[in-house]
Amino acid sequence: MTQRDPRDVIAAKRDGRAVDPDELRAFVLGYARGEVADYQAAAFVMAAYLNGLDHAETLALTRAMVDSGETLPLEGVSRPKIDKHSTGGVADGVTLVVAPLAASLGLAVAKLTGRGLGHTGGTLDKLESIPGFRTDLEPGAFERQVEEIGCAVIGQTVDLVPADGALYALRDATATVASIPLIAASVMSKKLAVDTDLILLDVKTGSGAFMKTRQEADALAKACASLASDWGRSTRVAVTDMSQPLGDAIGNALDVVEAVEVLRGQMRGRLRDAAVMFAGEGLSQLTDLGMGEGRAAAAAALDNGRALEAFRLMVRAQGGDPRVADDPEAVLPRAAVRRPIVAEAAGTIAAIDAEALGRASGDLGALRRKKSDPIDPAVGIVFHAKIGDAIERGQEVGQIHARTQDDAASAHAKVLATLTLVEGPVESPPLVYDWHGQVLR
Amino acid sequence: MTQRDPRDVIAAKRDGRAVDPDELRAFVLGYARGEVADYQAAAFVMAAYLNGLDHAETLALTRAMVDSGETLPLEGVSRPKIDKHSTGGVADGVTLVVAPLAASLGLAVAKLTGRGLGHTGGTLDKLESIPGFRTDLEPGAFERQVEEIGCAVIGQTVDLVPADGALYALRDATATVASIPLIAASVMSKKLAVDTDLILLDVKTGSGAFMKTRQEADALAKACASLASDWGRSTRVAVTDMSQPLGDAIGNALDVVEAVEVLRGQMRGRLRDAAVMFAGEGLSQLTDLGMGEGRAAAAAALDNGRALEAFRLMVRAQGGDPRVADDPEAVLPRAAVRRPIVAEAAGTIAAIDAEALGRASGDLGALRRKKSDPIDPAVGIVFHAKIGDAIERGQEVGQIHARTQDDAASAHAKVLATLTLVEGPVESPPLVYDWHGQVLR
Repeated sequence: MTQRDPRDVIAAKRDGRAVDPDELRAFVLGYARGEVADYQAAAFVMAAYLNGLDHAETLALTRAMVDSGETLPLEGVSRPKIDKHSTGGVADGVTLVVAPLAASLGLAVAKLTGRGLGHTGGTLDKLESIPGFRTDLEPGAFERQVEEIGCAVIGQTVDLVPADGALYALRDATATVASIPLIAASVMSKKLAVDTDLILLDVKTGSGAFMKTRQEADALAKACASLASDWGRSTRVAVTDMSQPLGDAIGNALDVVEAVEVLRGQMRGRLRDAAVMFAGEGLSQLTDLGMGEGRAAAAAALDNGRALEAFRLMVRAQGGDPRVADDPEAVLPRAAVRRPIVAEAAGTIAAIDAEALGRASGDLGALRRKKSDPIDPAVGIVFHAKIGDAIERGQEVGQIHARTQDDAASAHAKVLATLTLVEGPVESPPLVYDWHGQVLR
Repeated sequence: MTQRDPRDVIAAKRDGRAVDPDELRAFVLGYARGEVADYQAAAFVMAAYLNGLDHAETLALTRAMVDSGETLPLEGVSRPKIDKHSTGGVADGVTLVVAPLAASLGLAVAKLTGRGLGHTGGTLDKLESIPGFRTDLEPGAFERQVEEIGCAVIGQTVDLVPADGALYALRDATATVASIPLIAASVMSKKLAVDTDLILLDVKTGSGAFMKTRQEADALAKACASLASDWGRSTRVAVTDMSQPLGDAIGNALDVVEAVEVLRGQMRGRLRDAAVMFAGEGLSQLTDLGMGEGRAAAAAALDNGRALEAFRLMVRAQGGDPRVADDPEAVLPRAAVRRPIVAEAAGTIAAIDAEALGRASGDLGALRRKKSDPIDPAVGIVFHAKIGDAIERGQEVGQIHARTQDDAASAHAKVLATLTLVEGPVESPPLVYDWHGQVLR
């Protein structure tokens, strides 16, 4: 359609009128082509932040973002295809485990992923701590690997949803990130541009998540589920707890070490539980297995070495050193300084400021401040205690991996400051609060 | 002060929190220097449009805009100095009359003015239809002319409030013009940057104004009056009727012809009444004369030729052909086609869509569509009838001045379409609804 005056779209949203889907589409595609100015897009996203976007507008925005670039039909993949995405958390290494785990169960995981954002780490940064590991596969090689091995995890090597990339950078610069419909459109545009049979979303809520409240997380989960349903795609969305780090490792190489422990069946706990849950969900939705059977199959694949083998194949196929599957600490970069985290007071952990823990790891060098900053793959925090655990004064509750003793001392104080200790028992939060979304047959 | 993250200012306004005046100032000055990006300023103005700006924020914005550029102290002018500004209307040639009229009464009018905007004409464009008339005087020459003749009307030849110019262009492109505090800051920053003894503001309301309702116009008038008062400057703000063209001429040269008729004392009506009112207001506020005496003196100066003489001196001083004061039609450019406007139905005029009349004149070539467009000084519309006038079918109610017969025919239909005719008597709207502002002694 002919682009009308972009100010008409801005004015409609400004006045709380419904924006015509075709006009919104023309606005977004015009922005992607550079015909709508960035300041006009900025005015629109602020109006959308304050006045909201309704169902039809969010869908039109998402469609336009998908149509702004290429898509990945993945026609060469014969296995049932799943995508798995988390809205971001601390010690959230689920994708590192789920991708090879699901592959070992006969599913295909074609995962395009991103780098760390804010206080949260990114799967791409974690995998790149494995020497030689390449995340820049071309679409053809990516698809072949998914068909042969069952999983591949890469960065954005095709021009997928460029309008989303541009809009996200603009929102970041204009204090308009935290809008449910804008986040839903951003998340789902990237999932819908890749043709999979099931989208598994993990919407995190709590102190370490971007959605601090259940209410926000539920709203985002529902918005994402609606978009998938309107698009004709199956999705299952879990709202999960991020009131504390999910796993123990908050860094990059440290997360790979932990993922290998889970893939070997050696580590129990919430990270394993989450991986089993998502892999089991995918399996039971896309095969004849029931939910319990799906989870049991996933747990077995962790315990019998098949998931680890799939991980080894993926690492090798992407140019990484496959010995990381056998002795990760020998292969991965190590920090010069290791300092134990020692509790300075006794009590039961009632709360953990997980965002502050993420930032403390970032301050050690595990995250970028600016997009162009390098990260240090070796540094980070390992923190073993969870909400409900009773700790003693003097007890070692983790380790800091730092470049210098000063960095380690500074991080030590920050980590202890994230803890709220009380007397008496505290209940552990559930792993999952709710599920949304539907599977279309 | 050090510039903080511009996003903090945007986020505060987005969330409806009060923005710290120093931070707002740093944001605006940073924008003027190019350090705050235009998309960040766009997000801010949309948030301000939707959430408003309080008294302190509007003052801080205005101060920052004034401080972004130079100011005109006018220390070399010994007469009492007034500034006169209209928010814009149709056939609003008051400044053309008031400037020489006030000068002839012993006041000084140092007027920096602009070009046409939207559906309204601009004083600069009107004056430039006089052959040779220069509007680009340097500040020194401007000040000398004001001291010697009592008036000068020029464009922005100094770098006055550059932040306002940049912000206005941005608001125009982002559908954020129509915000009372943003308009008040824009209007008053330009007035406060020139040091005068009294600011006379004409806030127009009605079909031909930017403020269509009394409520909006009153709010803008009060906001402007508050800004002046907080600054320590005297101002008088009239809310006046723009439910119909103020004068009869809607063009550029045509407005000069009409202004000369008023300056000669030959034309009665609302344009003369408005000019007498504003000149009388200035005179009575800045001299010992009472209000009635001030207005009487102004009326006398129109009738005894003194105001016309001041106009002649101003035109000559600014390089224009002074014969325009004697026989304007002989000096000014004339359109090729003149077509009478003939009423096609009988009735009493109950309403006039003055904005549509302004646009019809613009379509003839009297206004710019884009900033870089040329205008045709000769074309336009003269429309004699006012609300409450009874007209007969076949009666000539004005003339169209056009480049072609086609243009004239098209304008003829548009002009008649602006009229609402009824049976029976209709009351004429008042000239002035209300006054605001205070004079500081």
